[in-house]
Amino acid sequence: MDPRISFVTLAAHDLAASRRFYVDGLGWAPELDVPGEVVMIRAGEHLVLSLWDEATFEAEVGRIGRGDGVPPFTLAHNVGTRDGVDAVLAEAQAAGADVHDAEDREWGGYTGYFADPDGVRWEIAWNPGPIGLLVLPD
Amino acid sequence: MDPRISFVTLAAHDLAASRRFYVDGLGWAPELDVPGEVVMIRAGEHLVLSLWDEATFEAEVGRIGRGDGVPPFTLAHNVGTRDGVDAVLAEAQAAGADVHDAEDREWGGYTGYFADPDGVRWEIAWNPGPIGLLVLPD
Repeated sequence: MDPRISFVTLAAHDLAASRRFYVDGLGWAPELDVPGEVVMIRAGEHLVLSLWDEATFEAEVGRIGRGDGVPPFTLAHNVGTRDGVDAVLAEAQAAGADVHDAEDREWGGYTGYFADPDGVRWEIAWNPGPIGLLVLPD
Repeated sequence: MDPRISFVTLAAHDLAASRRFYVDGLGWAPELDVPGEVVMIRAGEHLVLSLWDEATFEAEVGRIGRGDGVPPFTLAHNVGTRDGVDAVLAEAQAAGADVHDAEDREWGGYTGYFADPDGVRWEIAWNPGPIGLLVLPD
């Protein structure tokens, strides 16, 4: 099994709200858009972000465990400059997201977070190190 | 903000166990490997899978909410054939993962799941439709 992620699928409690945020708010165009079921958005050359109605997700994957707190994962969107981090966080805030302002990180980067309608944390990051360069688009 | 995922970061309850599964078990070579802190593995051309020590994750992102059930997201690894699905699931099982055997899906594909040491569900999928083709490597 080669190390490769093809899809990231998020269980959406209110798919219409998720669609409003990602499609209308952030302006991400769906590849597939089935109201009440699923919205799929291309998020890389061979990568798709899928927003899947929570009930259907649970019927296939299993009952979701939630508690009082954040989901046990984050997604990151890296940009090439410090200013780019602030600009993207402002855009997410304008689209209705709660934002945690960016900070300098001890490893040399500058990152902040926003939360999507289900509380999924997106880290917006400027990472001047080798791994940060690796993830930037050509 | 263009639709782009740079990192998928998983909170690892026992980072050494996660490392044993992904690095030793599945044979995925780390780009960055800091014992007790983080393991980063390239998972696409501009995509990194990061396994991050849970305590450090919580200090930066917030206290994790868990409950009795599965995490509210899945990762998928798509392959080009039905047989490939069974082969990858067998490989994950040999690496110690709990596996849910593949099934034919109503949308025309064939997929099964395995769980990583934190219960993160990886869907192994053969998807003969246009979106399935889009995510396959060149």
